[in-house]
This record gives sequence, C-alpha cells and structure tokens, in this order.
Amino acid sequence: MMGGDFAPLEAVKGVDAFFKENKNDVHLILIGDEEKIKSIADIGNIPVEKYSIVHAPEVIEMHEHPTKALKEKQQSSIAIGFHLLAGGKTDAFISAGNTGAMMVGALFSIKAIEGVLRPTIGAYMPRENGSLGLLLDVGLNADCKPENLNQFAILGALYAEHILKIPRPKVGLVNLGEEEGKGNLLAQAAYPFLKENSHINFVGNIEGRDILLDKTDVMVCEGFTGNVVLKMAESIYDITQRRNIKDEHFDRFNFESYGGVPVLGVAKPVIIGHGISHSTAFKNMIHIACRMMETDLTGKIKEKFSAQEI
Amino acid sequence: MMGGDFAPLEAVKGVDAFFKENKNDVHLILIGDEEKIKSIADIGNIPVEKYSIVHAPEVIEMHEHPTKALKEKQQSSIAIGFHLLAGGKTDAFISAGNTGAMMVGALFSIKAIEGVLRPTIGAYMPRENGSLGLLLDVGLNADCKPENLNQFAILGALYAEHILKIPRPKVGLVNLGEEEGKGNLLAQAAYPFLKENSHINFVGNIEGRDILLDKTDVMVCEGFTGNVVLKMAESIYDITQRRNIKDEHFDRFNFESYGGVPVLGVAKPVIIGHGISHSTAFKNMIHIACRMMETDLTGKIKEKFSAQEI
Repeated sequence: MMGGDFAPLEAVKGVDAFFKENKNDVHLILIGDEEKIKSIADIGNIPVEKYSIVHAPEVIEMHEHPTKALKEKQQSSIAIGFHLLAGGKTDAFISAGNTGAMMVGALFSIKAIEGVLRPTIGAYMPRENGSLGLLLDVGLNADCKPENLNQFAILGALYAEHILKIPRPKVGLVNLGEEEGKGNLLAQAAYPFLKENSHINFVGNIEGRDILLDKTDVMVCEGFTGNVVLKMAESIYDITQRRNIKDEHFDRFNFESYGGVPVLGVAKPVIIGHGISHSTAFKNMIHIACRMMETDLTGKIKEKFSAQEI
Repeated sequence: MMGGDFAPLEAVKGVDAFFKENKNDVHLILIGDEEKIKSIADIGNIPVEKYSIVHAPEVIEMHEHPTKALKEKQQSSIAIGFHLLAGGKTDAFISAGNTGAMMVGALFSIKAIEGVLRPTIGAYMPRENGSLGLLLDVGLNADCKPENLNQFAILGALYAEHILKIPRPKVGLVNLGEEEGKGNLLAQAAYPFLKENSHINFVGNIEGRDILLDKTDVMVCEGFTGNVVLKMAESIYDITQRRNIKDEHFDRFNFESYGGVPVLGVAKPVIIGHGISHSTAFKNMIHIACRMMETDLTGKIKEKFSAQEI
C-alpha cells in the first residue's frame, strides 16, 4: 500500500475499485502503515471480509538502493510482502514501490523456477488493431546471452497464450533488420536458438517499426533496448496528452490501463507497478495477478521448463 | 538518381526543388540511367549549367547483398558515386539507394578520418519545443566498445554545433536509468569516458522517455538500440497519418522532412537517404550536404581528432 507517488491513497482507491467490479473470492492482504490506510475514507467502502491489514511501519523510498534498503528495512511493506509470499501466506504480490527493490525481492526472496536461467519482466505494447503485444525483457536483464532471449521467448509465449488469450502466439526477435543473419552479436546468436525452439511459434526478426504493429504477439530483446523502447512508448502518451490529442489508439499508450508488468519465471506471481500509478493501475494489477493465479501460469511455466531440452 | 523506391522521378523533382529555392553555386552531378533521367519532364526546369549527368547503366537493388553488389556492379550509380567522391571529382555524395551498400561504400571507398575508430550514422529526433536532437549511432555499429560511444559523442556534438547551430550542445548517454552506475556493461563502461571527455558537454544518462524531449541535444548509444528507436519513431508518424491526426509536432516525425542521415567520421560528406524518399527528402539531403561543406564539418572533425588524447 505504500508504493507509488500517491500512496496509500490511490492504492486504497484501486482496491475499492477492484471489489466494486469483482464478486469473486479474492482476499487482499493490505501491507502498509495501518493508521494511514485506515485514515483514507475509501477504505470504508470495501467489505471488511475482503481484506486484512498487515502493518508495515517502514517505507522503501523510490530512490533508495534496492538491495541495501530491502536488507535494512525489514519492516517495510515490500520486505514484508516478499516475506509473506515466500512463506506461503499470500499467493501473489503486487507493488508500485521501488522497482529495483521489487526486482531484487522477486529474484532473491522467492527464487527462479527450476530451469529458468534469468527471470524477466515484460510490458504490453498497444497495437492499432486493438490487440496487445508483449515486449520482454524491459529492464531486469540489461546484458543477456542468447539462451536468455530464448527462454524469454518461452516465458512470453506462455504469458501471451494464457493471460492474453492468444492461441499459438507469434514470437519475433527485435532486431535492426528483417533478414536472418542481421543484428548485433547477441541477436545473430539468438536467432538459431529461437528458430530451433519447438516450444514457440517463432516468425523471425522484427524491426523497431513493427513494435507498435501486430506483426508478432511476443517481442524478445535484452533489457537495455526493451527498457528504452518501453519508456519511449510511455512518453508518446505524455506527448499526446500535452498536445491535447484525443485518439482511441494513443489513449491505449496510457500504461496505467495495464496496471503493471509481470515478473516471469519466478515461483509466484509478482507484479511491479509504475511509480505514478493511480487507482486504475492498482485495480488492473490485482486483475493481472488474479488471472495469473486462475490460469496457474506459474505451474504451466514449471511444467514447460521441466522439459529436458530447455 | 537511381536510389529509392521512386527513382529517378523523385530524385529529379528534388533537384528541381532544390534549385528553385537556392541561387547558390552548387553544381550537381546526377549519376544514373541517363535516358531515364532525361525522360522525366522536370529535368527541363533545371538550368542546364547547374548539373551534369554521369551515366550509370547498373542499379544496386534494395535487397542485394551490399558488399557483393558494390563489387560486382561497378557501373551502378552507388559504385560510380563513391568512385567520383574518392577521386575528388565530387565533394559530397548523396543517395537513397541500398543502405548497406552506402555504408560499405562510405567505410571502404573514402575511409575513416584518422583517429576515428568507427564512423557513425546519426538521425534527427524531433522535440516538442521545435528543436532537433541528434541520436547516434542508428545502425552502422550494432556492437560497440565504450571508446566508440565516446567518439560518437564528439562527432555528434560537432554536427550539432556546426550543422544544427546549437552552441555547446548537451550530450546524453542513452541508458535504462538516470543515475551514474546504471546500465548494461557497455553503458556502465562508457559513462566514465564521457564524463572525462573535455571535448563535449556531457550531462549524464538519459532514458527512453527523454529521447523525444529536449533534455540533451546529442544522444549516444550503440547502433542496435539506436536503430530500433529510430524505426519506432518513424512508425509513430505512420500511425498518426493512418489515424488522421493533424498535429504540428507529430508532423515533424515525418523523417522525410530531414532528408537523410549523415555518415560522420568519414573523410567526405556522405548522406544516406530513406528508401521511401520523395522529392522533399532529396531536396533536403542536398541542403544537408551543402551545409556540411559550407561549415567544413569534415575539416573540423579532422582537427578535433588530430588531438592526441582522443
């Protein structure tokens, strides 16, 4: 509840909005400063049986060093959140707090699924035809090996199939040219891995101009390029807002609509939200976590990665 | 004249448009299929003393292998163009033809300026305040060393100062976080080089969201990320066009307005145009080449790189 620039107000509002829309049996553990949470009027709208509050007296601020802060602030909402998740007290963890601390927590508190070399973070890319593409990695793995990209492709394809409901999702390798053989050393080396990968529907290289088209459903790259692309896409929405452009498609560049980005390849659902998250983002992050649990995405990833050849 | 999807028609129209606007003493050598060039009505508008035609019976097609095609098609307009440039018969070379062949030609026909480890290609990025930023590298160097990024920064700063007329241009390192120490291995290693570089006004890391803002004038990255960013920026214009969005700022994402991208660090001005170039692009490419000659940008680069410490 303490993550994001408008905590805990917008987080509480998001929880309220979620339960207004959903009659399912989700129970939310709200982790944060109990007094502050209770002081927000909207908390009164949420049926009391739908949530419990776990008090967290500390907060990891947005610019603190992730590893150091997680270690020193054991009573922060993020540290407690991962503690509950790792201990099996919760089934998924959502936060719009310090991104680095969320990543470190996801990697070290709950661990990667066996066989997954490097967990990854994906982000949605809106397309003109109304569909969503998944770009990954968008910042968790700045330097990658070809094997990593190959695994991101499998993780992304499973997410696209089960969460985005795209049958046989098309996978593309982000590159600087379409033809096989193009690219930097990493992309050149990753291509044959992807081509030989029987677990995915690899359709070849895609270029920067294809990222906002529906050429492929899953777009794979290392986290440096992916992060630059994601933040640039986010800035397009800001520009359209500043310039008063009203357009259904560009409105979908409002990344708040999608809530947060899933960490894929870790043993439990973890969703990382944007620092500027408002109530809609929080509501949607809860939705994503629910869908990940309903479809048992983690189980499906475990099953896939237990195959010997990956 | 034979480069681009609408050759030689749009090239001829571009030359015509250039001379309609300019009364200066530029003489253009039009290289291409003489009969085809002469068959275009617009050629009649151009004062005869302003141009000569050099016949080139061969054409390197857009999807031919650059090195192979350049070697085998010695009578192509690109091969002849580089031959004339290298032999001192022309002072600059412009083409919207096979990009790879243009790059190969620039690197091997006229060579890099002494001290320049790797020449680079830059591209303009339009900003909301009406200014232009220069992003480089955008595809010539897919894999880079820190020293390369450091040199791209110097080349880009000289271009920004003399061609874009920005005094003391601010240089930023494209990265996935703002703080020093962030980044992939390359960005982490390049940062100290840039910080210590007394030839540039380095202001630190910039993120994807800053690329379309005026935070820095020169933005440095390896050619993989730069290429993906450039092509994504180009696709934004296509989307606004398809969606019938009329906006002065987004209209500036029409990369045709800028003509082509300069190859920086080679011994003579070379401008590479987009395959879809229309007359405006050709006209503007001639403008850029003229400005590069008027300001003696190549001489200024030579002077800078003769300094021992670079």
